[in-house]
Amino acid sequence: MADPLRIAIAGLGTVGMGVIRLIDTNRDLLTARAGRPLQVVAVSARDPSRARGIDLSPYAWEHDPGRLAARSDVDVVVELIGGADDPALALARAALGNGKALVTANKAMIAHHGLALAAQAEASGLPLKFEAAVAGGIPVVKGLREGTAANELQRIYGILNGTCNYILTAMEASGADFETTLAEAQRLGYAETDPAFDIEGTDAAHKLAILAAIGFGARIDFDSVRATGIARVRAADIAQADALGFVIRLIAMADVERGSDGKPHLLQRVRPCLVAKNHPLASVHGATNAVVAEGNFSGRLLFQGAGAGQGPTASAVVADLIDIARDEVGAPFSVPVTGLAPMPPAEPGHRMESTYLRFTVADRPGVLAEITAAMRDAGVSIESLIQKGRAEEGGEVLVAMVTHEGRESCVTHALELLDGSESLTARPLVLPILRD
Amino acid sequence: MADPLRIAIAGLGTVGMGVIRLIDTNRDLLTARAGRPLQVVAVSARDPSRARGIDLSPYAWEHDPGRLAARSDVDVVVELIGGADDPALALARAALGNGKALVTANKAMIAHHGLALAAQAEASGLPLKFEAAVAGGIPVVKGLREGTAANELQRIYGILNGTCNYILTAMEASGADFETTLAEAQRLGYAETDPAFDIEGTDAAHKLAILAAIGFGARIDFDSVRATGIARVRAADIAQADALGFVIRLIAMADVERGSDGKPHLLQRVRPCLVAKNHPLASVHGATNAVVAEGNFSGRLLFQGAGAGQGPTASAVVADLIDIARDEVGAPFSVPVTGLAPMPPAEPGHRMESTYLRFTVADRPGVLAEITAAMRDAGVSIESLIQKGRAEEGGEVLVAMVTHEGRESCVTHALELLDGSESLTARPLVLPILRD
Repeated sequence: MADPLRIAIAGLGTVGMGVIRLIDTNRDLLTARAGRPLQVVAVSARDPSRARGIDLSPYAWEHDPGRLAARSDVDVVVELIGGADDPALALARAALGNGKALVTANKAMIAHHGLALAAQAEASGLPLKFEAAVAGGIPVVKGLREGTAANELQRIYGILNGTCNYILTAMEASGADFETTLAEAQRLGYAETDPAFDIEGTDAAHKLAILAAIGFGARIDFDSVRATGIARVRAADIAQADALGFVIRLIAMADVERGSDGKPHLLQRVRPCLVAKNHPLASVHGATNAVVAEGNFSGRLLFQGAGAGQGPTASAVVADLIDIARDEVGAPFSVPVTGLAPMPPAEPGHRMESTYLRFTVADRPGVLAEITAAMRDAGVSIESLIQKGRAEEGGEVLVAMVTHEGRESCVTHALELLDGSESLTARPLVLPILRD
Repeated sequence: MADPLRIAIAGLGTVGMGVIRLIDTNRDLLTARAGRPLQVVAVSARDPSRARGIDLSPYAWEHDPGRLAARSDVDVVVELIGGADDPALALARAALGNGKALVTANKAMIAHHGLALAAQAEASGLPLKFEAAVAGGIPVVKGLREGTAANELQRIYGILNGTCNYILTAMEASGADFETTLAEAQRLGYAETDPAFDIEGTDAAHKLAILAAIGFGARIDFDSVRATGIARVRAADIAQADALGFVIRLIAMADVERGSDGKPHLLQRVRPCLVAKNHPLASVHGATNAVVAEGNFSGRLLFQGAGAGQGPTASAVVADLIDIARDEVGAPFSVPVTGLAPMPPAEPGHRMESTYLRFTVADRPGVLAEITAAMRDAGVSIESLIQKGRAEEGGEVLVAMVTHEGRESCVTHALELLDGSESLTARPLVLPILRD
C-alpha cells in the first residue's frame, strides 16, 4: 500500500464535517480509487468544544488554523473557513508557502485572490484545487478545465445560486410574491438570515468569474461582473412570463468578443432572465445548479446537480483530494497563470437581445401612448404587449412587453426617455430573454 | 516550448477527420492548455485517394494501420477504425505493446476487450483513454472516473443512444408510428441503413457496460446487459404515456445489490421506460444524450450533451489527448484492473417497480375480465387502466394499465398466465416507470 495522503482540515462547519464523514463512510472505496488512503490527521475550528456528532479525537487539534500549514505530518490543507481574506487567505498562503497542496471550497477567496494563489502554487509545483467553490457537487471546474478543454468556448452560462433558484421556482409554484417566498426560504434554511449576498447575485458572480477564467483563459475579473439580483421580480412577472412560454431564472453568463481594438473583451453578467420553457435550464428547479458550456466542437454541454449542501460540497472537496492522491493535477485555471489573458470588460450596449419589459403605471389615459412612443423613438420594436387591468380602485396597472431582438442600448435609451415620467409609478423591470 | 505530443490517427471517417480539423482549428488554444503542441504526424485509412476536403499531405500515410504503432515518431495512437475485434483490436494491442499511449472512440472494443487492454496499459504504465466511446462529446467517462470519485454510486442511468432518442421524441412530436419515423430518421442521417445495432439497444448496452465498470468498480460484463429495443413502442403508447404524465425514453440503467450470497451483484438493463415529465431525462430531445449518476454524497448529477457527431466526438478524443499531454492520466477504469470486482449479474425479478402494460386484444366480451383476473392471480395491483375503443370495425382494442409498485416477477407471472390466451392479438408491451 502506498503512503497515505495526509490531510488537515481548517473549518469544521457543515462542509468540514461532511468531508470527515465522507472520508470515514467511503474509506475503502476512496483508498482503491485514490491508490492510497486518504487520512485526516489534523483539524482546526474556532470552538473545539462544540458538539459535532462525530468523534474528533483521532485528529490532532490546532487552535490556530495557520499552524495546520506548518505541520510536518500534513500533505494537503483543506481550507473551509470561508471569506475572501484572512484568516482563510493567510492559511492558504502559508500552506502553499510550506509546500502543502491546497484544496478550498472558498469561492470568494478564489474570485478575489485565485490568480495570486495559483501563481504561488505553480511557482512551487503544488496542487491548488477548488472544485467545491463552484456549483457544489457538480464537477464543473473539472468539466471546463478538462472535459471541454479541446474547445474554444462560445458562452458559459447557468444557474449558479441555489437560493435564488429556490425562491424563483417556489414563486412559480405558489404564485406568492418575493418577500413572502424569501421569508419561507429563510425559515426552511434555503436562504440566510442576511440574504443579500445571494439574492443580489454576488455569490453567483463569484462563481461566474471563476468559470470564465477557466473557460476563456482569462485573468479573473470579479469586479467587472455586472450583477442584478432577483428582489424586483414580482409574482406578476412570473405569471406574464408563463403566459408567454417562459420561466424566470437568475442566469449567470459570460462570453468573449473582439473589441474595436481587435482584442478579446470579456462580458460577465448575472441577471434574472426569461428562459424559454423548452430550454434545459427551464427544468432546473429548487436549489439545483446547472452550467451550460457551448464549445466550437462539443456543442452545448450541460452539467447539473446539487449546488450546495454538506454531501455535495464534501463530494467535490474529496474529488480534489483524490486527484491530488493520484497525482492528476496541473494548472488550476487550465493554463498557467502567466498564460491567462488580461481581458478588459466588454460593453454590453451593442449586443442584440430580445427583452421583457414590465412597467407599473398610473391608471389614466395616454400612458400606453407615452410608453410606446418612447419605444418607437428609441428604435425598440415591440413583439407583444399585455396590459393587465387594475386589480382594485386606484391600484397599479401593469404593462408588460416583449421586444423583437435589437440592441440593448436601444432599450436603455427608451427607458431614459421615460425617466422622470409621471406615468410610471416605479422603475421599469428589464429582463433579457434566453431562448433555446 | 515543451516537446509536441506526436499523434497517429487510424481511421479517417467522420470522427478522424473531425480530430484533424479540431487540432488544426484550435491549435494555439490546445498548445496553451496542453502545455505542448498536439501534432498529428501520421494517419491511416482504407482509401488514401478518397476526397476528404482537408489537405492530408503534411501527415505520413500508412496503408497498414498496424504500422502506425511501430513508428518511432509517434507518442499516441488514436484508434478510430471501429469494430470490437481486428483490425482495431490488433492495432490497440500493438500500440500498447510498442509503448504508445492509446486513445479510442471504440465502444464495442472497450466493452468486449477493455479489461485486457487496460491490464496491458497498466502493466506498461501507458495511458489508455476512451472518453469518446461513451456519449460522444459529454465528458462522462471523466465525470464518473474523477468527478464522482468520492462517492459510492447508487445508480447510473441515462439516455445513451441518440438514434433511439431521436426516433422516440420525433414520434412524440408528430404522433407518427415507429416504422414511419425510423424511415424519416434514416433519410435524415439519424439512423443507419441497418438500424438494428441502435434500435435493439446494443449500442446503449456497450456504453452502459463501460460506465458501470467505472462507476461501480466492477469488471466489464457486456454479455449480462439485458437489452430491449424500441421497435415495439407504438404511437398509441406514447399517447397513453402522455395522458398519464410521462414520456417514453430508451433508458440504460445499472445498479448494484447485495445478493443472497452477501456479494455484490450487478444489474444492467437497457429498456424503453415511461419517464415522468418532471424528471430531467424527460426534457432530453432529439439525438441528445444524458447520464445521471446518483452518489451517496453528491446526490443526483446530470451530464447532458451531443451523444454523437463529428465535432462532439472529436472534442472527446482531443480532451483525452490533452490529458495525456498534461500527464494527468491514471487507471482507465478508475481503479486498476486487478482491483475491479467480478460481479455476477443480479436477478431482476424481486426488484420493485411500477409498470406500464399495454395489451392489444380482440374486441369481444370477457377480455378485460380475463386480463384483470390474471393480474389479480399474480398479485399485480392495478393503479389505472384505460381501454381505448376500436378505431374501426374488427380493429384491435388497446388496453393500457399502470401498476402499483410491486415485484417485477409478479408482472412476469401475470403475463405467463395470459400466455396463449386467444384474447390477446399480440405479445403485451411492458415498460417500467421512472419517476423523478
